[in-house]
Amino acid sequence: MWFNSQFKTQNKQLMNLINKINSHSAVIGIIGLGYVGLPLGLEFAHKGFKVIGFDVDEKKIPVLNNGESYIKHIKADRIRAAVDAGTFHSTSDFSKLTEVDAIIICVPTPLNEHREPDMTYIVNTGEMIAKYLRKGQLVVLESSTYPGTTDEVLLPMFENAPEFQNSKLKCGVDFYLAFSPEREDPNNPNYNTATIPKVVGGVTPACLEVATALYNQVIVNTVPVSSTKAAEATKLLENIYRAVNIALVNELKMVFDRMDIDVWEVIKAASTKPFGFTPFYPGPGLGGHCIPIDPFYLTWKAREYDISTKFIELAGEINTMQPYYVIEKTMEFLNNQGKTLKGAGVLILGASYKKDIDDMRESPSLKLIYILQSKGAFVDYSDPYVSKLPPTRHFKFDMSSVDISKESIASYDLVLLSTDHSDFDYELIAEHGKLIVDTRNAFEKNGIKRESIFKA
Amino acid sequence: MWFNSQFKTQNKQLMNLINKINSHSAVIGIIGLGYVGLPLGLEFAHKGFKVIGFDVDEKKIPVLNNGESYIKHIKADRIRAAVDAGTFHSTSDFSKLTEVDAIIICVPTPLNEHREPDMTYIVNTGEMIAKYLRKGQLVVLESSTYPGTTDEVLLPMFENAPEFQNSKLKCGVDFYLAFSPEREDPNNPNYNTATIPKVVGGVTPACLEVATALYNQVIVNTVPVSSTKAAEATKLLENIYRAVNIALVNELKMVFDRMDIDVWEVIKAASTKPFGFTPFYPGPGLGGHCIPIDPFYLTWKAREYDISTKFIELAGEINTMQPYYVIEKTMEFLNNQGKTLKGAGVLILGASYKKDIDDMRESPSLKLIYILQSKGAFVDYSDPYVSKLPPTRHFKFDMSSVDISKESIASYDLVLLSTDHSDFDYELIAEHGKLIVDTRNAFEKNGIKRESIFKA
Repeated sequence: MWFNSQFKTQNKQLMNLINKINSHSAVIGIIGLGYVGLPLGLEFAHKGFKVIGFDVDEKKIPVLNNGESYIKHIKADRIRAAVDAGTFHSTSDFSKLTEVDAIIICVPTPLNEHREPDMTYIVNTGEMIAKYLRKGQLVVLESSTYPGTTDEVLLPMFENAPEFQNSKLKCGVDFYLAFSPEREDPNNPNYNTATIPKVVGGVTPACLEVATALYNQVIVNTVPVSSTKAAEATKLLENIYRAVNIALVNELKMVFDRMDIDVWEVIKAASTKPFGFTPFYPGPGLGGHCIPIDPFYLTWKAREYDISTKFIELAGEINTMQPYYVIEKTMEFLNNQGKTLKGAGVLILGASYKKDIDDMRESPSLKLIYILQSKGAFVDYSDPYVSKLPPTRHFKFDMSSVDISKESIASYDLVLLSTDHSDFDYELIAEHGKLIVDTRNAFEKNGIKRESIFKA
Repeated sequence: MWFNSQFKTQNKQLMNLINKINSHSAVIGIIGLGYVGLPLGLEFAHKGFKVIGFDVDEKKIPVLNNGESYIKHIKADRIRAAVDAGTFHSTSDFSKLTEVDAIIICVPTPLNEHREPDMTYIVNTGEMIAKYLRKGQLVVLESSTYPGTTDEVLLPMFENAPEFQNSKLKCGVDFYLAFSPEREDPNNPNYNTATIPKVVGGVTPACLEVATALYNQVIVNTVPVSSTKAAEATKLLENIYRAVNIALVNELKMVFDRMDIDVWEVIKAASTKPFGFTPFYPGPGLGGHCIPIDPFYLTWKAREYDISTKFIELAGEINTMQPYYVIEKTMEFLNNQGKTLKGAGVLILGASYKKDIDDMRESPSLKLIYILQSKGAFVDYSDPYVSKLPPTRHFKFDMSSVDISKESIASYDLVLLSTDHSDFDYELIAEHGKLIVDTRNAFEKNGIKRESIFKA
């Protein structure tokens, strides 16, 4: 009888939480207010949920609470509307975690200098949650990570939460835990947070049920899978696919270069096959927080199982080589003109890691600047979305964006296009640039072919 | 003045050929009447061109001239209609090449035992053409091959054609030469020969002009590229993309197996991402005439340029390993049941390299039979489309397809699904198979889950 009544209590708790979610009266806590957490929090806020945003970066809090944005593609209007409506409030006071019904973790999962997972953010966040965890809460991890993270890292933290030392909490009974990978694609014209289907895996069936109920309120479609590790593996597969295919075309670029075949022409022609082919494009290196990083989470975990991930290793090798290859080809190009990099004035066009966004994370432009400087070039950059180069863990350049004009373009020995922003005036640059290296085929795509432009 | 009149003559010859093509009065010669040449020849025949099919395999000639087919997905009706209309005639008499205006080469380009290009068919065909070449003819190569084949192998043969020793023929002037890769996908429900756009590269602009004119008569869309080697590289890129991506999921299958994650579930979940992901599926090994072979044509050629194609090599390594991996997992599965392969009766389901076709080229089923036999199993196979196993260069099994019935299925210790033909009665097989190894996830896709079914 005791057992039965305990079951009923638990069941009631689960039903309560689901009802609060379905009626949008649940309070949502988002930990990590960056490229993933901020738009997700805004989705909930705009659906009428009360959202509390948490971030350890105290500088962000007043900005957000003032209705301003620090990410180009997330409009301040959208933040301000939610703040004014009283549905979105940010804080760095994690004790307020006790006020929320669901906690969604959107913290970074970078690599350390030895290409190993840096779990600091997840572990610190987990510890913080464990400190304030209360019965009936749902916790969902969204950060891309190796299969097993939710079960092996977070679950024991929560089941052994300090407050409940004497009566350990049980997942799926006292609290709910799930993994649901973010699939943000900044600036994608066709899809946003709300319209990209969301994969969800729960530690238990109850965890899955409540987590899918939550996302169903704001996401077009949820895709339940059998376990948290299946959900973790799904995100890795998506990004491994991209990292490997980008590396593949980067390798083929190097092969076709030798054969005097234009890889861009070949990719364009192959793209006319109406099935069985998806184009990927070469570039000066991988950027962003996902593609260069996520795959190595699997590599690291696989070692525990005595197995290696050779495609990922090879992709890493080829992609890491790209900025060096671009500079090597650039030096060949200059050499043919009887010039050297040493002493040359070089303007890098584009600082962000992909076109039309302001995201500098892992941008290959920084690596290009570093290599160029190390070879004795004088380097400037120009990017309409990045007025100053932010310091990163690897690079601390004190540089500001140069305005593009006839005169400024003409003043450099070499212009090197790293990021193909749509806003660049390609005609003007082609007209006035002495020598141009194009790593994105951007000039040709804009209908410009000149002797002075070299594709590297 | 002489120069001018010569130019006019050449120009007239070019215009004549293009006019004959546009009016469908040109005679088309197809060399190699297999999976590529036969459907292509029929397209021309059904558009009213007179087509002469050439094949060194004399057994094929009376079959075709009798209006019969030897390829399952090419219907005899279609051949008979063309034969009856008098637009399609086959021969092994290559002297009739003098009667045609355009020659399209659709011969195999396999690998030898050391994974090097076997150019025998192209070289023999080229020599045959050179023997009969006459002024004003167009020659197009369609066989998948390394960049440079058309320029380096065929062009010199034709420019030095024996008949014209004293007044060498000039390509683009006296005759025309192009490369246009076949893109056949047998049994593709959405696309056929006529509706798949065709990439064309010519040795000279005149060659490109006449070759595109030719394909424009029968193909929905032609895609001109700047050179024959760009066209050759295009086909390789398409198939390298597939080979590498299949290898990638095969590697991930092995990694996820260790982690007790179902790769099929992960691929299905990742496929819900509406952009940036294309699913590929693991299997018992690569088959068919393209994917396992074409990539190594680039590898071989790249060595000439002192560069290696690491992704292709790795894909080859992983894909070649798959049948061995499947048998290894099968032995583990049997071992868990206290059984061995040695002495076991094994039924392989599916002999062809992919579902619903009868094509046995490079089929992994043959390799599976070989490995199973070498481990002491007694092996049979069942395939509705392959009544007897044809001898191949590697394997000469004297086996006939076993009919599937309750009794036959129940009589084997193990059933191993290699090819997931739609026609298999999965319910019956699951019901009566003692133990089943499924390399295609076919049972689960058909809604069948059982303890006796193991995914390998």
